[in-house]
Amino acid sequence: MTYKQAGVDIDAADEFVRRIRSLVERTTSPRVMGNYGGFAGLFRLDYNERLFKRNYREPVLAAATDGVGTKLLVALAADRLDTVGIDLVAMNVNDLVCCGAEPLFFLDYIAAGKLSPKRLSEVVKGISDGCVTAGCALLGGETAEMPGLYEPKDFDLAGFALGVVERKRVIDGRNARPGDVAVAIGSDGPHSNGYGLARKVLLDKGGYSLDDRPPELEGASVGEELLRPTRIYVRAVLDVLAQYKVKRVVRAMAHITGGGLPGNLPRVIPEGLTVRVKRQSWTPQPIFRLIAETGNVDEIEMMRVFNMGVGFVLIVAPDFVRPVMNRLRRAGERCWVLGKVRRGGPELEWA
Amino acid sequence: MTYKQAGVDIDAADEFVRRIRSLVERTTSPRVMGNYGGFAGLFRLDYNERLFKRNYREPVLAAATDGVGTKLLVALAADRLDTVGIDLVAMNVNDLVCCGAEPLFFLDYIAAGKLSPKRLSEVVKGISDGCVTAGCALLGGETAEMPGLYEPKDFDLAGFALGVVERKRVIDGRNARPGDVAVAIGSDGPHSNGYGLARKVLLDKGGYSLDDRPPELEGASVGEELLRPTRIYVRAVLDVLAQYKVKRVVRAMAHITGGGLPGNLPRVIPEGLTVRVKRQSWTPQPIFRLIAETGNVDEIEMMRVFNMGVGFVLIVAPDFVRPVMNRLRRAGERCWVLGKVRRGGPELEWA
Repeated sequence: MTYKQAGVDIDAADEFVRRIRSLVERTTSPRVMGNYGGFAGLFRLDYNERLFKRNYREPVLAAATDGVGTKLLVALAADRLDTVGIDLVAMNVNDLVCCGAEPLFFLDYIAAGKLSPKRLSEVVKGISDGCVTAGCALLGGETAEMPGLYEPKDFDLAGFALGVVERKRVIDGRNARPGDVAVAIGSDGPHSNGYGLARKVLLDKGGYSLDDRPPELEGASVGEELLRPTRIYVRAVLDVLAQYKVKRVVRAMAHITGGGLPGNLPRVIPEGLTVRVKRQSWTPQPIFRLIAETGNVDEIEMMRVFNMGVGFVLIVAPDFVRPVMNRLRRAGERCWVLGKVRRGGPELEWA
Repeated sequence: MTYKQAGVDIDAADEFVRRIRSLVERTTSPRVMGNYGGFAGLFRLDYNERLFKRNYREPVLAAATDGVGTKLLVALAADRLDTVGIDLVAMNVNDLVCCGAEPLFFLDYIAAGKLSPKRLSEVVKGISDGCVTAGCALLGGETAEMPGLYEPKDFDLAGFALGVVERKRVIDGRNARPGDVAVAIGSDGPHSNGYGLARKVLLDKGGYSLDDRPPELEGASVGEELLRPTRIYVRAVLDVLAQYKVKRVVRAMAHITGGGLPGNLPRVIPEGLTVRVKRQSWTPQPIFRLIAETGNVDEIEMMRVFNMGVGFVLIVAPDFVRPVMNRLRRAGERCWVLGKVRRGGPELEWA
C-alpha cells in the first residue's frame, strides 16, 4: 500500500502550492526573508535599508488568532469561496489595530476534507486580497487534507496575524476620561459574527434561500448580504494614529465582533467609565431588520449578537473629534459621533 | 428567538475560559503584557528590566503554523484528548528552531461541533504542557463552536508559533559543506505525520483496535503507540546554539515531518550537496515495522511518509560533532551520527 492509496494526494498539494504562489508573492515586502528550507517564515522587524526603513525602540509584538465562524457554512452553501479569506484577515488585523499595532504579517491554516487545488486557491485569493488591503505579508500557511473529520467539500479556516507597536504608544484605554467622544466607523453588514442566529432565523425558520431577494433588502439577495466581506479598518486607523504620534488623541479602540457594542466597547475603557450611546445616531442595514423581524429577535438581543452597522469604535479626545473624523472619511470610511464617555458602567448606557 | 436558542452557548464559552485560565497563566512570562481589552495578545520583544533582560540588534521574526493532521482522529476515537495539544505545539516550535529562532509565544485555534468545556480544556492542558516544555507563553487563542461543520464531539486544532533570531545568527544551511556531519535526534514514534497511511493500514486493513496489544509492540497498545506525543526539541537545540554564539558550528537543521528524511533533509542544504545516510545507524521503533508488515508498504515509501525514528537532524561542522552530541544527550535526547554531507543531490544517498 502507498500513501496515495491511503487517500493523501501529494500531487494535489503540489498543484495547490503552484496555484497560490503569485497570490502569496503579491503580498510580500522587502522585509520578508527568503524561503530558507521553509520550516518557518522569516520577517525582519528592524529594517535599516533605504526605503521601508523601520526601527523600533521598545517593540511590543501584538498577536491575534481567529476564524470566520459559521459564515463559512454560508459560503460553502453558496459555493462562493473568494470572500471568506477577506473575512479571515479582517477578523484578525482589526483586532490587532485596537492596541495601536501595525500588522506585519499573516499566516493561514486551511483544513479540508479533500484538497481541491482550484477551490482552495479561491480561498487563498481572498486571503491575499485581505493581506494587500491590510498591508501585511502572507508569510506562511498550512493546508491539511483531513478526510474523516471534514466532508469532502467542506473546509475550515484559521488565521494568525502579527503586528508591532512601540511600547510607549500602546493604546490601552487607560487615558480615557469623561467627555471623550466615541466615534463609530460603519460596518458593511454582519461581517463575521452572529451567523449562528442569522442562518437559523433566515434560512431555517424564515425559509429564505440564499438566492431570494426579499423587498426588505432593496434588490440584494440574502446570500449577497450575508457574504459581504468584513471591512478592514487598518489603513484608516493607522492613518489617524500616524497624525498624532505624540499626543494621546486616540484613547481606546474596539473592533465590534461577537457580543456587539455591549460586549466589546465597555471592555476597552477603564472601570468606572461607560459610553452613553446615541441610538438614533445611525440606522442599521436592512439585513439586520430582516433578521429581527423574521426571527422576532428583540432589539437588545440583536445588539448583543450583531455589530448592527457599527464595525469599529474609536474613543477620541473631544478637541480632536473633527480632524479624526475628517481623516477617517478621507480614508474612505463612513463615521459619526456615536456617543460620549461618562462615569458609570460597566454596562453601556443608551440614549 | 435568542442566540442561545440558535445553538450558541455563551455560558459554556465562559466556563471554558474559567477552566483554562490557570493553564494559560502557568506559561506566562514577565514579557507578556496585561490583557488590555484583550483584542490582541501583547508581548515585549526587548525587555530591559533586570532578570529576563533581552535585547536584539536586528531581530528577525520567525513564524510557523501547523495542525496535527489526522492524528486527531485517533485521539478522538480513543477519547484521549490531553496529548494532541503537545503535538500541536511541537509541530510548530520544532519548525521554528530549524532557523535558529527561540520560540516566544504560541496561539491556538480550536473549532468544535459543540463547545464542551471539560473536553476542550483537556486539549488546552496539552497545549499548556507543550508551551511549558518549549518555554513559550500561550499568548492567546480562539475557540469556535461550529455545529454543521463538525460533528458534536469532533474538533480541529491549529497552532501558531512566533520566535525571534538575530539576523546574523539565522541558520539557513548556506554554510554547509562536504564533510559536515548529520546528527540525528531520535523521535518517539510517528509524531504527527503519516496518520492517513497508519490508520488505513492498522485500523482498516489490519483490523486492529486501538486497545490491541500485538506482540510486535512489546507490551504497548496500538493506541498508545499512535498517540505518543511529538517530542519537543527546542531546549536541546537552543542549548547547543547557545554554546556556539560566534562560530558557525550548526550549519542547518531539519524537523523530520511529512515527507520523512527524503522530503525534509535535502531542502535545508544548498544545491549541489546531499547527505549520505547510514541506514544501519539506527533501528526504527516497532510501530513502524508493524505498519510496514501489516500494510505491505515498501521501505522507500515508509521512509517518505514517516520519520522512521529520526525526529530532528542537525548538520554540524565535523570538529564539533562530539561536543554537540554530548550536549544533546545532557539535554535528554538520544542522538547519533546519521551520515555525512557530500557533493551530489538533490536526492539523499543511502549507505
